[in-house]
Amino acid sequence: MRINVSKDILLKALQQVLKAVPANQRIPILAGVHIQALTNELIVTASNSSMTILYRIPGEDSSLTVQRIGEVVVPARYFCEIIRKSDSGMITLEVDSSLRLSISSEHTQIRLCGMDAVDYPAIHPAENHAALKLAVNNQLLKDSILQVAGAASSSEHRPVLTGVSFQYRNHRLQLTATNGVRLASRTIDVEHDAEMERHIIVPGRNLVEAVKIMDGEDRTTEVEVTNRHIRFTANHIMVQSALIEGEYPSLHHVIPHTFISEITIGTAPLLKAVERTTVLASESIIRLETTADTLRLLSQTAEIGDIEDEVSILEKNGEDFTISLNGKYVADILHGTSSDFIRLRFTGKMSPMVIHPLNDLSSTFFLITPVRTAK
Amino acid sequence: MRINVSKDILLKALQQVLKAVPANQRIPILAGVHIQALTNELIVTASNSSMTILYRIPGEDSSLTVQRIGEVVVPARYFCEIIRKSDSGMITLEVDSSLRLSISSEHTQIRLCGMDAVDYPAIHPAENHAALKLAVNNQLLKDSILQVAGAASSSEHRPVLTGVSFQYRNHRLQLTATNGVRLASRTIDVEHDAEMERHIIVPGRNLVEAVKIMDGEDRTTEVEVTNRHIRFTANHIMVQSALIEGEYPSLHHVIPHTFISEITIGTAPLLKAVERTTVLASESIIRLETTADTLRLLSQTAEIGDIEDEVSILEKNGEDFTISLNGKYVADILHGTSSDFIRLRFTGKMSPMVIHPLNDLSSTFFLITPVRTAK
Repeated sequence: MRINVSKDILLKALQQVLKAVPANQRIPILAGVHIQALTNELIVTASNSSMTILYRIPGEDSSLTVQRIGEVVVPARYFCEIIRKSDSGMITLEVDSSLRLSISSEHTQIRLCGMDAVDYPAIHPAENHAALKLAVNNQLLKDSILQVAGAASSSEHRPVLTGVSFQYRNHRLQLTATNGVRLASRTIDVEHDAEMERHIIVPGRNLVEAVKIMDGEDRTTEVEVTNRHIRFTANHIMVQSALIEGEYPSLHHVIPHTFISEITIGTAPLLKAVERTTVLASESIIRLETTADTLRLLSQTAEIGDIEDEVSILEKNGEDFTISLNGKYVADILHGTSSDFIRLRFTGKMSPMVIHPLNDLSSTFFLITPVRTAK
Repeated sequence: MRINVSKDILLKALQQVLKAVPANQRIPILAGVHIQALTNELIVTASNSSMTILYRIPGEDSSLTVQRIGEVVVPARYFCEIIRKSDSGMITLEVDSSLRLSISSEHTQIRLCGMDAVDYPAIHPAENHAALKLAVNNQLLKDSILQVAGAASSSEHRPVLTGVSFQYRNHRLQLTATNGVRLASRTIDVEHDAEMERHIIVPGRNLVEAVKIMDGEDRTTEVEVTNRHIRFTANHIMVQSALIEGEYPSLHHVIPHTFISEITIGTAPLLKAVERTTVLASESIIRLETTADTLRLLSQTAEIGDIEDEVSILEKNGEDFTISLNGKYVADILHGTSSDFIRLRFTGKMSPMVIHPLNDLSSTFFLITPVRTAK
């Protein structure tokens, strides 16, 4: 292998794929990055047991010239750090017969001990026939994942709950996540040639990396689902995640279908009040109380102090209510919404509060199970 | 106490003084911030056993109105967080007879449990007669401290070495720090009415907070030294640090007064080469070798790789040399200098390398003790 590549574009590729290399990776080959020069393309790949990130540098312009094809695996963090500290301009990479990678620029000669690419985990095994292939608008997919993924569990106690459920049916994709106390769900329209159904669970933390590639509002991300993986491809970058095996809990009976009362309120003033109230909330528990045209928010911590905040209610149907909730969960929902107004539905003192953004009443909802308090 | 104060200015004051409140402070009164309303001024103070930060908000303009003087101590982090999350505009603070602080704005009512200010550590004890009082240009003092303080030790093994030595004599102030392997020293001219001498040791980490108040290139910082403290006052803010007791080691015999050879080199290219070489340096040890007109930098880590870098020598006197040094120490020095060129003086294979910025040859120098290597 021998190539000339621009420092800036190589660094960008390495920084992207490095997210798949855990800092404490002890297996040398997996602490490596796979560099593969094809006739007119450089492919940079990093992988861990759960996620693979692949970056393609096309040989279209002067930023890449492939003189001899080939491949090698080199220590990822050292390689990235060396390229980061290189002078701008072109860098020559060359692999010799003993798998040493020479990195040369004007005043600098570096040799890194390489490993055989044969030992690197394969990215495209035969099982990878795509069972489902969708093209989704970048911004829509990114927003939906970010709105939902935060509700997933961070505890490995029930592995399926650390994932986000992707349910595709009748040209609609429903994303759902829950940790048992809160739940977030959004359904988006996604066209597909054939009628088909597919239900998978994707690790939440891999999705947080996947959304980072979804740049450019008017472009699309290609989503491919195979037996064991989901792949997101956008802007020359592919993020592949393993799926979580197991049965996602049926949530139909958890979701309230009727409500006792509902209020509509401004998102921004509610968020500010919730954040303030949560500062003095013991275990983040805040109390919400409606009066005639005001939502009062209350919290206290013994020996520190207490707070009373209020926000105007814009519209109310049904009776007044009082409910105690985790203020951080409420703030997370409000942070993630682009809607200027939000609707809160009270379904009973010990039944989940349902929250809808007003700009997407029918397709997006959040549940928060209330907390029983002494008062 | 009853005042009206602008949210923004109160928040700025709290964020500044909060640096003196360790996150794990268990003594309630020291986890508090002292709020004192005088006739036409609000004083916000926080303190730990080693450092006090005091911020004055003058009642000059509409951002502060004192309606009733008084004082109280309230939990610092809660108070700061609440003010941070308050709406912009004016906030009313009022202390009642049971030391509760009410914080009121349009829609929000907060009560914080206060503590008696009598129990708060006094800032101006009788011992505080200033033995030495200097006015130093902000930028000069800040640059000097930042250049020197990084060389102090971070180990509590020898407490005096965690400090920076301030030696004032004959209208000159010499700042020195060393961890036993590296040393940094800078001497600046500071006028004073009388002939006097004073030698103190100031904890390095308090100085790092002190420099943050030294804003505004053309203003001065007032430096006051008492028996037990040093105080820096600039821009309405005072940072007071306890002194380290003990004898600072005499460094006269450590500093080489002759040299075997010297080279002059560009700071920026040398810094880049040192940083690159250090990436592959085992225990950060890099080797420097001069040839005719080039400084070569070399390092290696077994089983990872090796690097050879080179930088042009602009001027050389004396014979060629080879020396092994800690690359991070060299990079720290180069980062901290504003000089475009640097002079390296070789004083022997096992004797400290002396580094001077070329724009301040006579008053600033750095020493790095070389490392004995197998080669």
